[in-house]
Amino acid sequence: MSFNTFGKIFRFTTWGESHGPAIGCVVDGCPPNIDLSEKNIQMDMNRRRPGQSKFTSQRKESDKVEILSGVFKGKTTGTPIAMIIYNNDARSKDYETIKKKFRPGHADYTYFIKYGIRDYRGGGRQSARETAARVAAGAIAKIVLNKLIGKKFKVVGAVVQLGLLACNKNNWNEKQIRKNPFFCPDQKSVKLWEKYLLSVRKVGSSCGAVIELRASGVPAGLGAPIYSKLDSDLASALMSINAVKGVNIGAGMNVAFLSGEKNSDEIRNVAGKVKFKSNNAGGILGGISSGQEIIASFAVKPTSSILNSRETIDDNKRNTKISIRGRHDPCVGIRAVPISEAMMTCVLLDHYLLNRGQCG
Amino acid sequence: MSFNTFGKIFRFTTWGESHGPAIGCVVDGCPPNIDLSEKNIQMDMNRRRPGQSKFTSQRKESDKVEILSGVFKGKTTGTPIAMIIYNNDARSKDYETIKKKFRPGHADYTYFIKYGIRDYRGGGRQSARETAARVAAGAIAKIVLNKLIGKKFKVVGAVVQLGLLACNKNNWNEKQIRKNPFFCPDQKSVKLWEKYLLSVRKVGSSCGAVIELRASGVPAGLGAPIYSKLDSDLASALMSINAVKGVNIGAGMNVAFLSGEKNSDEIRNVAGKVKFKSNNAGGILGGISSGQEIIASFAVKPTSSILNSRETIDDNKRNTKISIRGRHDPCVGIRAVPISEAMMTCVLLDHYLLNRGQCG
Amino acid sequence: MSFNTFGKIFRFTTWGESHGPAIGCVVDGCPPNIDLSEKNIQMDMNRRRPGQSKFTSQRKESDKVEILSGVFKGKTTGTPIAMIIYNNDARSKDYETIKKKFRPGHADYTYFIKYGIRDYRGGGRQSARETAARVAAGAIAKIVLNKLIGKKFKVVGAVVQLGLLACNKNNWNEKQIRKNPFFCPDQKSVKLWEKYLLSVRKVGSSCGAVIELRASGVPAGLGAPIYSKLDSDLASALMSINAVKGVNIGAGMNVAFLSGEKNSDEIRNVAGKVKFKSNNAGGILGGISSGQEIIASFAVKPTSSILNSRETIDDNKRNTKISIRGRHDPCVGIRAVPISEAMMTCVLLDHYLLNRGQCG
Amino acid sequence: MSFNTFGKIFRFTTWGESHGPAIGCVVDGCPPNIDLSEKNIQMDMNRRRPGQSKFTSQRKESDKVEILSGVFKGKTTGTPIAMIIYNNDARSKDYETIKKKFRPGHADYTYFIKYGIRDYRGGGRQSARETAARVAAGAIAKIVLNKLIGKKFKVVGAVVQLGLLACNKNNWNEKQIRKNPFFCPDQKSVKLWEKYLLSVRKVGSSCGAVIELRASGVPAGLGAPIYSKLDSDLASALMSINAVKGVNIGAGMNVAFLSGEKNSDEIRNVAGKVKFKSNNAGGILGGISSGQEIIASFAVKPTSSILNSRETIDDNKRNTKISIRGRHDPCVGIRAVPISEAMMTCVLLDHYLLNRGQCG
Repeated sequence: MSFNTFGKIFRFTTWGESHGPAIGCVVDGCPPNIDLSEKNIQMDMNRRRPGQSKFTSQRKESDKVEILSGVFKGKTTGTPIAMIIYNNDARSKDYETIKKKFRPGHADYTYFIKYGIRDYRGGGRQSARETAARVAAGAIAKIVLNKLIGKKFKVVGAVVQLGLLACNKNNWNEKQIRKNPFFCPDQKSVKLWEKYLLSVRKVGSSCGAVIELRASGVPAGLGAPIYSKLDSDLASALMSINAVKGVNIGAGMNVAFLSGEKNSDEIRNVAGKVKFKSNNAGGILGGISSGQEIIASFAVKPTSSILNSRETIDDNKRNTKISIRGRHDPCVGIRAVPISEAMMTCVLLDHYLLNRGQCG
Repeated sequence: MSFNTFGKIFRFTTWGESHGPAIGCVVDGCPPNIDLSEKNIQMDMNRRRPGQSKFTSQRKESDKVEILSGVFKGKTTGTPIAMIIYNNDARSKDYETIKKKFRPGHADYTYFIKYGIRDYRGGGRQSARETAARVAAGAIAKIVLNKLIGKKFKVVGAVVQLGLLACNKNNWNEKQIRKNPFFCPDQKSVKLWEKYLLSVRKVGSSCGAVIELRASGVPAGLGAPIYSKLDSDLASALMSINAVKGVNIGAGMNVAFLSGEKNSDEIRNVAGKVKFKSNNAGGILGGISSGQEIIASFAVKPTSSILNSRETIDDNKRNTKISIRGRHDPCVGIRAVPISEAMMTCVLLDHYLLNRGQCG
Repeated sequence: MSFNTFGKIFRFTTWGESHGPAIGCVVDGCPPNIDLSEKNIQMDMNRRRPGQSKFTSQRKESDKVEILSGVFKGKTTGTPIAMIIYNNDARSKDYETIKKKFRPGHADYTYFIKYGIRDYRGGGRQSARETAARVAAGAIAKIVLNKLIGKKFKVVGAVVQLGLLACNKNNWNEKQIRKNPFFCPDQKSVKLWEKYLLSVRKVGSSCGAVIELRASGVPAGLGAPIYSKLDSDLASALMSINAVKGVNIGAGMNVAFLSGEKNSDEIRNVAGKVKFKSNNAGGILGGISSGQEIIASFAVKPTSSILNSRETIDDNKRNTKISIRGRHDPCVGIRAVPISEAMMTCVLLDHYLLNRGQCG
Repeated sequence: MSFNTFGKIFRFTTWGESHGPAIGCVVDGCPPNIDLSEKNIQMDMNRRRPGQSKFTSQRKESDKVEILSGVFKGKTTGTPIAMIIYNNDARSKDYETIKKKFRPGHADYTYFIKYGIRDYRGGGRQSARETAARVAAGAIAKIVLNKLIGKKFKVVGAVVQLGLLACNKNNWNEKQIRKNPFFCPDQKSVKLWEKYLLSVRKVGSSCGAVIELRASGVPAGLGAPIYSKLDSDLASALMSINAVKGVNIGAGMNVAFLSGEKNSDEIRNVAGKVKFKSNNAGGILGGISSGQEIIASFAVKPTSSILNSRETIDDNKRNTKISIRGRHDPCVGIRAVPISEAMMTCVLLDHYLLNRGQCG
């Protein structure tokens, strides 16, 4: 059973609402004796936090993480690591005008139907604010994996399509990703994307995105068939991120177009090492990592909270219209990059520990 | 923890290898007092079993299900329902020639790396034969949901793209799906697909497919955010099916191309009923069902076991080539239809029961 | 998988160390629309907190609970309820002298062996301080059950044996339990216990206790055989409390002495209601509640941290002696009363929700 | 969530009713590459099966185990191991006379209330017949632990009290346990117990028992605090066995009588090895194994199915009487010995694997 807990051996539980006093995360099952400080975690938090460019929400949050337990004298103890992040810039008043209306495309309606109660302030628990807690958990997972399997382990994400504009993945440049506000890996797309996104915002609209994740340094053998396959768990992890509607592993949906010969990655012994001639599998075969780079991508839908007026109903089922002011990302897909890196890292650590238990 | 168990409250555990004496399934958490017979389950088994047309594997299996427990005088008792399906037509000899080689694109290699041992007979546990057990579980889930929420509940799957050939989804015809060997919903595509798939086989190759699933009659309010969202669980369920590499909910990967206005499905009160003007969300908002049709699609890669020669290594890491004879589906995506219907049905029942527990 | 999470549908995760900045609890799966305030929870916290009489630890903790999420306008929303309790009176210096020695009978040694690291300040995570978080969760569970099944639902615990002195259970008086510092149900024992416990403390020793729990108003039908039987889950819950070494359901260990006739509680229809002529079963048959009062008891070992000198080793395996000063309960069993009530209440709510999911 | 599944990493799922065609077990998470044959498992099955002496049920079952999956060429493959045991000697007719009455002290009543349906044939799923499947799982766990930690690992159980008669535990003789039909460790008690049990049966009654389990060769460090403590999990495992009403770890309920000095086992370095001067803790401190012998005991209530007439009601709530003929154990506690050994072994293996995952 999970609800607000993710993972099997390395598990985290998140809590908190967009406009409550704080949000947080309890990481359980973290191996002991790992060096850990708030500073290490903060670096990842900063990549996700809003208000850093004109292309994300203008809500100003420092997203400062405090560790409340599980670390003694700078080392993990094997006990739960509780982290808290205070909400500093919540403006619930922004939501007064829409508190009885349901935003089309948003979870307002379904939460109300399920729970019979609605925390309308900033979307409450549905808000992407929850994902800050995931990034904190992912930062810990990364530190642990770097300790356990070395610095060669790395997960890198990038936006490869912004609305209608794809970048050229052949120009994938990891350093470039950290230099622009779009996490775009292709320098040539940056200017264009900037113009495009400003125009999207100007017309009171929003756009979607596709993000690609690449994990290198992952040992072969991770994944627990049949129902905890590595790709199953990755799909579940990525689909749990707000606004994600599609997930691909390797060639993904495009496998339908490939022939059997083209699709199946041939294997070679090259100077004693097992190499694959292609990577349509995205590094996962039968739900188990093959030692290749793990590649996943996913699509994020356009922000539902837009200025343009839309038809909807209120909580008395009366027909009405809605137009959302306030501070929203014109493309929520951008900030999905550090969030999805965090989720993938947590899944990989979890399977690393699980496999160590199972197969020793 | 899951491994070979799927679900939360309605849970099933599958076991068995392609060429062992039998495969089977234990369904746990089935509500009591539901009419159930082997005959009801068999109908669904027959839709999946091989050897029914020239477009699937020629392995002849009756896939006859026997119920060993959990049913008394024709009714479920609330205790585990064990089912067994004997393997009748396993020809392990077919695999002698490749027992030391790894099929490119197949799980042969990763299972060997993970477990350090290989059951080469028909792929052992990696074989899609395991999915027969899922269909048995899904058949029970369907019967239970039809009892609990009525006959209006229905999950229908269809192949909407066979290799390079898409069908016209506007011609979606449910009756047609049951009439052709491709589970194709568009009569106009059948002849073309037939020709196409024969040619694929003739050249010793295989092709991929895209399957679409539609569930109607699903009440609003199912799904447990944040980490057991209905779409997360569906993604995990579908990605666990052999050879699946991509999963979409509603508009799926295409949401990246949509504007905020276009994507978010407007809501209307039409004669007292809540209606949506479109269904890009695929019936799921914030991980919770909205009362709309639940729509998911997924891509299945082309069969890895093909006649055409491919480069690979053996279990001593020596470079070699492989060419697979034996009985294989030219397109494993076809038989994924009843399997995926079963998985979606199990997820929906599970969330129905879970929601009843949580929200009464 | 659980570690620091307890429960199936109603689940709570605790975190925090004795001498860290705070401890806390995340309650997940709480039904929505239940009235909940910090004040309601505080009443239960106050029953457990130390420093209230000369018979418990003199550590002064207000144990003030703050709710950080999951409640909106005084009602639960169905999302996780995070609670935090700050540690105010932690004196880590008290532990400097023993930081390299292992207290016999304490978890100091085994935590060090397992995790290879030791948070010696007040026992770190092993401390009974963690149980404050359980009481907070239990307080919520009680409020929910009182809403769902009415005020007739009640769990009452009492110390029925203090060291060598048993009280007379025939004099069980619920009001009396709340009036004395021992949670003793028999007024006649109070004076005697007072004298006894002072003498135990005076000689630098400690004593054990037996606690009995009685839950009334529990509907028949709760419990999920075979491996989530109500009594299995209660045994696990009670054994998880610090220092508990034995758990009985109903007649418990004494069933060995009973004949088949004597043990099995005869059933009668009395004026249309099902009544049992005795309750050796403690209200549980085959792991399912029978509608009778649920009765469990358990033994708590004497506090390991005592003044009297004991032989032990240090973290270099050198032989040494240890004598513990500082603030310790002479009988930890006393404060186990509100803790165990909380655990039993959580188990009962969890099974109530689970049964609603399973059997509707 | 568990229901009919036990364990975290090493998990087994049991199914089947007393008078159905078969019972069985699916073991999941068994490490790969372990030698395993039906013959190895059968030895343990034979210790539990009925009809072997006049002191157990006269039902004749060969309890022959067949392995259906998960083993290839004599070795485990890491995939689920399904086992089936056919029921040969079920006589449902014996139950016709009581099919509408509830046996006092039995789960007949509570299953009926929970599920609204009753499989009266031999108690259906409530029957201790289910425990045969546990013994099969335990046999595998034993083989795995003997491979992983060596032959020094051993779990031995014995009946230490039969009804009113305790044996002298100072005479504990392991070989003796295997020589008498009572699993009695003290030769001097055998004759007396024989007489006693025959007399109990003669008068149409039954008696209870206390069983003690001792596990040696268990490494220190197993157990996952707070809610998967080794003792919590053992308590849950033992309490899940039919008719168990009390569980002790080490000194158990008797800790209440001990002083702090007496109870806490002093620690010594003896020739470089950590030794404890006593074992009141039963080898578990803070929920983690200490390296000492793990000691647990539990009480089994007298068989509820007795010849002597008892008052009860029928399924229309009408008052009536019941007297049970048929084949029943006069003391179900006896056969609990191999069952409880199996459960303890499974718990220990599970925690061994879990700890390997967590702490590497």
